[in-house]
Amino acid sequence: MDGKAAEIGALLANENETQQDKDQEEQVVNPWEVSAKEGGKIDYDKLIDKFGCQRLDPSLIDRVERLTSRRAHVFLRRGVFFAHRDFNDILDAFERGEKFYLYTGRGPSSEALHLGHLIPFMFTQYLQEVFKVPLVIQLTDDEKFLWKNLTVEECRRLARENAKDIIACGFDIRRTFIFSDFDYVGGAFYRNMVEISKRVTCNQVVGIFGFIGEDHIGKYSFPPVQAAPSFPSSFPHLFSGKDNLRCLIPCAIDQDPYFRMTRDVAPRIGYHKPALIESLFFPALQGETGKMSASDPNSAIYVTDSEKDIKNKINKYAFSGGQDSIEKHRQLGANLEVDIPIKYLSFFLEDDTELEHTKKEYGAGRMLTGEVKQRLIEVLTKLVERHRRARAAVTDEVSTLSCRSFWSSGLEHTDFADLAAALS
Amino acid sequence: MDGKAAEIGALLANENETQQDKDQEEQVVNPWEVSAKEGGKIDYDKLIDKFGCQRLDPSLIDRVERLTSRRAHVFLRRGVFFAHRDFNDILDAFERGEKFYLYTGRGPSSEALHLGHLIPFMFTQYLQEVFKVPLVIQLTDDEKFLWKNLTVEECRRLARENAKDIIACGFDIRRTFIFSDFDYVGGAFYRNMVEISKRVTCNQVVGIFGFIGEDHIGKYSFPPVQAAPSFPSSFPHLFSGKDNLRCLIPCAIDQDPYFRMTRDVAPRIGYHKPALIESLFFPALQGETGKMSASDPNSAIYVTDSEKDIKNKINKYAFSGGQDSIEKHRQLGANLEVDIPIKYLSFFLEDDTELEHTKKEYGAGRMLTGEVKQRLIEVLTKLVERHRRARAAVTDEVSTLSCRSFWSSGLEHTDFADLAAALS
Repeated sequence: MDGKAAEIGALLANENETQQDKDQEEQVVNPWEVSAKEGGKIDYDKLIDKFGCQRLDPSLIDRVERLTSRRAHVFLRRGVFFAHRDFNDILDAFERGEKFYLYTGRGPSSEALHLGHLIPFMFTQYLQEVFKVPLVIQLTDDEKFLWKNLTVEECRRLARENAKDIIACGFDIRRTFIFSDFDYVGGAFYRNMVEISKRVTCNQVVGIFGFIGEDHIGKYSFPPVQAAPSFPSSFPHLFSGKDNLRCLIPCAIDQDPYFRMTRDVAPRIGYHKPALIESLFFPALQGETGKMSASDPNSAIYVTDSEKDIKNKINKYAFSGGQDSIEKHRQLGANLEVDIPIKYLSFFLEDDTELEHTKKEYGAGRMLTGEVKQRLIEVLTKLVERHRRARAAVTDEVSTLSCRSFWSSGLEHTDFADLAAALS
Repeated sequence: MDGKAAEIGALLANENETQQDKDQEEQVVNPWEVSAKEGGKIDYDKLIDKFGCQRLDPSLIDRVERLTSRRAHVFLRRGVFFAHRDFNDILDAFERGEKFYLYTGRGPSSEALHLGHLIPFMFTQYLQEVFKVPLVIQLTDDEKFLWKNLTVEECRRLARENAKDIIACGFDIRRTFIFSDFDYVGGAFYRNMVEISKRVTCNQVVGIFGFIGEDHIGKYSFPPVQAAPSFPSSFPHLFSGKDNLRCLIPCAIDQDPYFRMTRDVAPRIGYHKPALIESLFFPALQGETGKMSASDPNSAIYVTDSEKDIKNKINKYAFSGGQDSIEKHRQLGANLEVDIPIKYLSFFLEDDTELEHTKKEYGAGRMLTGEVKQRLIEVLTKLVERHRRARAAVTDEVSTLSCRSFWSSGLEHTDFADLAAALS
């Protein structure tokens, strides 16, 4: 960032979090960059303060269990989804017998998804199941075209491929609508984009997203595209006449800036503010200070990895909190705070008792890194195998017809009549 | 414009024509403001130099007459369409037997059109007739929503009403496609919008259009919407597989900034630069220094005006170049340079001999203002009557079916099969 750009940023910004602030701070979290303070971890408490969202406290999790008559999802119990905005209001509405809908999404920038990508979808699948609510899934192929060096057609292809992985997460197809922006934007959805864009100034997007004068206007135009699905009228084939329907958005916390903007606009155009439930970031194999990088396949486990790949990656790259020698390990135990196998198990090992036991034994030095890694390999192999089988069952036809994805060559609005009925 | 905004403008701008320059200059011409130097007229030579377009010289008009075997339109012969970009290339292509298509449009901000609004449509109708080419007409209801205090629904309604007036201009319905942005944006059109927006920086739109940081991002997002119809792939139901088709845009010269931007992007995304043929502004009744204003119905003749309205407006408000007294007029003659009845006759009186005779007699003081105004009243009453009759014949059904307007409740892409065939 050059001096001129910095000057523009400072002039344009009327919010606290500007490009300049970012340079001065050591932790950067926005939709395109997540990096901790040098050598440290993301400070999530600081993030909650800075973004102005709320911590998801135990009483709220109890309330979810009471309302759904089900044990809370592992991701709730273990604080993977740790922050929210107005989740209480959603539960109040649900308790009154009102419906709401879920909205999540993905930027289709790569062929294969890794475990971090699956987290919001696994959690959204749980929410859909226990609340029995409709779900819309946005594939922002336009965003990826704008931010990456890819063609429109390549982004659309990646969207279709990613949709199959998403469908494989087990959504209720009678209640789910998946769409690509390049195929679905138009009509009521476009009209909402324009309604939103009229209520957000250039200064504001510069303040929220840190855009600079040299950035193309595609970037400035995009935030309303991600905001629009927060409003039920963007889906007339699903929610016609239901402008009062509330929206709950499960996402990683780096997406919060989009929805802060959306929540500011919502009441001014006659809608409820969308509620949010937000997750931590899934750490790279190399540790929480590292980033999972698309250019480094060894930084993450992909859903396309073989059993051998998984075994190899975990054994070779998963950062261990264990000691250098067995003697020292038996004596001092593992540092669980930095240990990646334990982190990964806390995301994916369902059994609370086993997890607690493992942490205790490993932390005390009675269990070795190799044993913990072995257990993680089993858990992830099973997860990835299950995903692979589900993914293989998703043919092009299933993708188009069963999950009601709205590809341009595909369905007409009238084909959604029974889906709309299932939603009401 | 405050000091901060001025500073931002100066920092962001990398083109000559910035908000600051506008303040220093006395003549302002952009899509939202046309104002001459205090007390003067628009200096069109200066505008040609500033915008970098070319003057439409007599040899080019001769060439049009040769190629079409028709006398050139009054608006060409009399310099109403006076500037162009690459019109030569269009004629070269036509001479080689290649097709091209026409693109024009209107921002539907008012119920009734005035004579100034009709000029690009009358001229486009002529071009379509003599070159026998397809035409797309964009109604930028989204632009009007973004710039005016109107609702989305009101803008869409105005678009439909304005479409009827446009259809009444006599286009070849087999070769014409009219659309509203709020109804048509999507699919291939949206993909082109995104392709364009990726190639234009924020600095550039600030430089070209003078936007400031306090402006909403709807303004920053709009230029690609007006640019997209310049590329044939935005209309797959019309021009499928014809990405090489050239586009000619007849418009008033205040629209030039949009298409300078479009022409810069075109070769970078694989299309011909659109060619332009650009008109003068139609003067207000009060004279060329005044502006036709939607808030002052007496500044213009509307297509909805009665014979009595027209008579009254011309007699009462049309600025006269005649002298204060009959004696002085007989002695000095009229000043034709500032006389509005003569200006209006030069737009709408077809007969060259009569026009020349009138100018000569009036300029020499042998004809009085009252006589010239009387002739103008006859000409305009006839024109408006003819328009009114044609407009009355445009029912909702004609509007939807005959002119292939793509309202959302209306036609499907397949309904355009015969139109596409007529175009090829």
